[in-house]
Amino acid sequence: MTIPVILDVDTGVDDALAILVAVRHPGIDLLGISCVAGNAPLAQVVDNTLRVLDAAEAPDIPVAAGAARPLLEPPRSASHVHGADGLGGIALPPTERRAEQAGAVELMRRLILEHPTPVTLVALAPQTNLALLLRTHPEVAGRIERIVFMGGSASVGNASAVAEFNVWHDPEAAAIVLDSGVPTYMYGLDVFNRVAIEHELAHSLEHGDDALGRVVGALLGHRIAVSADESAEYTGLIGDAGAVCSLIDPGALRTELRPVRVELAGYARGQTLVDLRKHPGQEIGLTPADEWAGVEVALDVDEA
Amino acid sequence: MTIPVILDVDTGVDDALAILVAVRHPGIDLLGISCVAGNAPLAQVVDNTLRVLDAAEAPDIPVAAGAARPLLEPPRSASHVHGADGLGGIALPPTERRAEQAGAVELMRRLILEHPTPVTLVALAPQTNLALLLRTHPEVAGRIERIVFMGGSASVGNASAVAEFNVWHDPEAAAIVLDSGVPTYMYGLDVFNRVAIEHELAHSLEHGDDALGRVVGALLGHRIAVSADESAEYTGLIGDAGAVCSLIDPGALRTELRPVRVELAGYARGQTLVDLRKHPGQEIGLTPADEWAGVEVALDVDEA
Amino acid sequence: MTIPVILDVDTGVDDALAILVAVRHPGIDLLGISCVAGNAPLAQVVDNTLRVLDAAEAPDIPVAAGAARPLLEPPRSASHVHGADGLGGIALPPTERRAEQAGAVELMRRLILEHPTPVTLVALAPQTNLALLLRTHPEVAGRIERIVFMGGSASVGNASAVAEFNVWHDPEAAAIVLDSGVPTYMYGLDVFNRVAIEHELAHSLEHGDDALGRVVGALLGHRIAVSADESAEYTGLIGDAGAVCSLIDPGALRTELRPVRVELAGYARGQTLVDLRKHPGQEIGLTPADEWAGVEVALDVDEA
Amino acid sequence: MTIPVILDVDTGVDDALAILVAVRHPGIDLLGISCVAGNAPLAQVVDNTLRVLDAAEAPDIPVAAGAARPLLEPPRSASHVHGADGLGGIALPPTERRAEQAGAVELMRRLILEHPTPVTLVALAPQTNLALLLRTHPEVAGRIERIVFMGGSASVGNASAVAEFNVWHDPEAAAIVLDSGVPTYMYGLDVFNRVAIEHELAHSLEHGDDALGRVVGALLGHRIAVSADESAEYTGLIGDAGAVCSLIDPGALRTELRPVRVELAGYARGQTLVDLRKHPGQEIGLTPADEWAGVEVALDVDEA
Ligand SMILES: [Ca+2]
Ligand SMILES: [Ca+2]
Ligand SMILES: [Ca+2]
Ligand SMILES: [Ca+2]
Repeated sequence: MTIPVILDVDTGVDDALAILVAVRHPGIDLLGISCVAGNAPLAQVVDNTLRVLDAAEAPDIPVAAGAARPLLEPPRSASHVHGADGLGGIALPPTERRAEQAGAVELMRRLILEHPTPVTLVALAPQTNLALLLRTHPEVAGRIERIVFMGGSASVGNASAVAEFNVWHDPEAAAIVLDSGVPTYMYGLDVFNRVAIEHELAHSLEHGDDALGRVVGALLGHRIAVSADESAEYTGLIGDAGAVCSLIDPGALRTELRPVRVELAGYARGQTLVDLRKHPGQEIGLTPADEWAGVEVALDVDEA
Repeated sequence: MTIPVILDVDTGVDDALAILVAVRHPGIDLLGISCVAGNAPLAQVVDNTLRVLDAAEAPDIPVAAGAARPLLEPPRSASHVHGADGLGGIALPPTERRAEQAGAVELMRRLILEHPTPVTLVALAPQTNLALLLRTHPEVAGRIERIVFMGGSASVGNASAVAEFNVWHDPEAAAIVLDSGVPTYMYGLDVFNRVAIEHELAHSLEHGDDALGRVVGALLGHRIAVSADESAEYTGLIGDAGAVCSLIDPGALRTELRPVRVELAGYARGQTLVDLRKHPGQEIGLTPADEWAGVEVALDVDEA
Repeated sequence: MTIPVILDVDTGVDDALAILVAVRHPGIDLLGISCVAGNAPLAQVVDNTLRVLDAAEAPDIPVAAGAARPLLEPPRSASHVHGADGLGGIALPPTERRAEQAGAVELMRRLILEHPTPVTLVALAPQTNLALLLRTHPEVAGRIERIVFMGGSASVGNASAVAEFNVWHDPEAAAIVLDSGVPTYMYGLDVFNRVAIEHELAHSLEHGDDALGRVVGALLGHRIAVSADESAEYTGLIGDAGAVCSLIDPGALRTELRPVRVELAGYARGQTLVDLRKHPGQEIGLTPADEWAGVEVALDVDEA
Repeated sequence: MTIPVILDVDTGVDDALAILVAVRHPGIDLLGISCVAGNAPLAQVVDNTLRVLDAAEAPDIPVAAGAARPLLEPPRSASHVHGADGLGGIALPPTERRAEQAGAVELMRRLILEHPTPVTLVALAPQTNLALLLRTHPEVAGRIERIVFMGGSASVGNASAVAEFNVWHDPEAAAIVLDSGVPTYMYGLDVFNRVAIEHELAHSLEHGDDALGRVVGALLGHRIAVSADESAEYTGLIGDAGAVCSLIDPGALRTELRPVRVELAGYARGQTLVDLRKHPGQEIGLTPADEWAGVEVALDVDEA
């Protein structure tokens, strides 16, 4: 029983590893990849993604370019985090692969509607493409198994004091996705840097036959256990891949179904407000929580 | 070396215990008490406060009535939490004590300016009175040692998913206080229900000579240790008193100086945004953190 | 020299007349029509639009269904204004015409990119389709001559005290359009009910050969002059057509190039803030006006 | 029948003329003057006010210093409009008069409660003092006849595209005043520069015996008629005095009772939203207008 998956990426070191896992893992059937501006400009994201597929010796997986900027926020560069090429300087050889003409929204629409069973969307980037898809082609919603997104935080932020980068980068897009009625799973900063990658996988990658695997595996070797060292916070090496891993091994994370709302106003703009109270929604005077979307939020790593 | 203190209260069971501690503890010189609407309507708060002073056999401590409602928010009742009289049904006998005519703002001004050394303000309620004082008589700011307030949260809220009741009840007032330039100490929900009251104190209260002490001590007997049971969250019996205790035994809490801002907009209105990142203020694009007030935030109980 | 035009509509009586003018006027080359939910639900809008084309004896003009709801706002009905069918009860016979499968965004993209000269978009409805187009296919922006939209107000509103219905219905979409860099022309409430329809046109319609023309012409007969009677405000009979007429006879309106911004927050949400000051942008402390898009705003009817 | 009046000022050329009118006009009984930071810093405002009273040969009218800054907004200087001293360089001799120690809030409270009949407050500046008064001493509300304020706009702004300076300078204070339940009269930009000062008054001032009168009269001579020249917009010479004149000659202005709300969020922050629709409050989905305060808004000069 493989899981049919579409990845939405802004490759990115994080996304590179996630793509590799999605390509290679036998439990995942990677239908296609949509690209969006985020950690790197769109053209760079597309090129990086195609090169990563090459390095992964992937079959002919369709790739398409999507939104070049957020819905309302101005475009922003995260090159100080991910390097000028978004790949942290890991040189990958050029590729013959090409992106599809039709664009990411059309690619996603087609892949979802053509697939015989509901498809899982895994968003590892600002959710602009997903928001455009859901508003342009709402008929796909009923054919999406769920949307797993790397983003948000129920505690501290990274782009601001309380906001995580992907949601902060396009808060309106995230709000559209959360309120879409499609089941959502939030893989946020609360677990982002804490997921244990199995020794075995890292080792097999580092000493395997494919070029990317060796590079990534070597890097992984440094951080293969649950880390209490927050200095790892911005290296971004494992995070996005963890969201893919959660598909395969859902029991590794402790999740709770919680009311969640994306804050669009004020200093907290881009924060994912997660109602963690014992009795969510029993606030004294704010919006009734039954107007907040119920989201499965990954809150902790199951270290057992 | 006693600490000269003015209490700002919305008595309230919580505040009753805090007043008792402030009256009785040899380390505190209780100069006066200002009242504000919050957990109970203003007239009730004043009456409760005077009765509590009687029960505590306090000397002639001046009490004055302040704001009957928040700056902008509508008045709200918390009677479902604290009972119709705000004292949870603990009947205290009527008193001959009377509030000062001049009002809370004038009382605070006079007490602060007359005292030979800087005075500590301890706010156990929505901060409307303090905001009115600081804007009406800014000359007092230089004579305030610091403002210790029960309120806010660096994690989960109680009035909403992310906002604590006192700050949520009058967010503009809290924003005025935090940005006033007076040193502030936030005793929020992160420690509110977790402070250990010493057995000895509780025992001496319960078996002491004063009426209130016996009542309160009996109640305290049920929750004298650090509690992991969140079901105690809304009993409100210890919280405010903990803020007073933090004056006497500051080492019992782990605090950090953090940029804090009160959110005034959106769903997060009333949230105290606390920048807990390793490198606060290095956000990518929001308000530079040097515009956020530095607040000493109590984040944890030192259980050592 | 005809003007190549794509209409974006939520037909609607207003839009019906506008479509008729666009179909029949020799100065306009109507390339296609995109439909969006607004005055009526999407399916109704599409059906109304196809029937209107039939009644107009239009050639085979492509029509496509677009967004069924706004980006962030919940769907809303305006059936109290436009009747249950959005056509005010004007019964039009069923039609054999069918909408294109590809959808409105794809239709607009294709029509714009295929046309040898830049195309004018005329939006007579909430601008959801345009926003989706500009974010999904930004390459079209350089091929759009300008966007003329019925919406906004530099004075009083209709959906709220200060907001006009189309912008208020999807404020984020309007903000995306105004900030897109494409030249925009705002045909708002300031002129909406004040444009003179020439007697001759109304007369020729009323006594012409086509079914819709007779219906519409009869209605027009009641309001063919500049009206000072604000009681006409909600009849909505001429408004959208006026935006089409402005293409043909631009001199009939007095316009000014003004900084405009769509308010997204607070009570003014959906207001088009138009800087009408003698020296726009010289405000004391707000956002520099050079960050506000310059919009050609129709402010008055030239009654000369 | 004289009208008992307290003026709240940020003198200021405008306020100087208004004070003169209030001192000299037989229909007004000027009880006292409260000062607030606005056009000039507080100390300057107090000094200017005292000098103006001297120049007006006023009796011993109590003056007191109030708020040195707005509730939430940072202090701002308008010295580019009103000159470094706020009096546009009109040198007035020093005075022996002194401000009262008690402060503006206490002065207003005392004057209102001591007067046998309800008092009219005329606010010619940011409304910080009034807001502090109403929240600190709500018992005065029932003793205020009404609050006439220079501020706001139902059309274009001056501090921003849509906001007038006094309201924009302290929006929360204006919101508190409008929602206080005290009858309010808005003398905003819609009439600010359009009020005709009677020739007779200007002439008698210019050729009268008092120093200020001669100075002000000379200036008035230039603008004694209804002016269509908007270049006068920022000279600020008549505006505030017009609000005082409206007390004496209410028929000179056309007013309407309209729902008004101060916008606190977004780009429109500081705008006075005035519902000018034929059927106010019948918006489709926003806050019901019955939650908006009814304000008597001066909309036009009666030129008959
Ligand atoms: Ca990513
Ligand atoms: Ca309390
Ligand atoms: Ca329309
Ligand atoms: Ca003034």
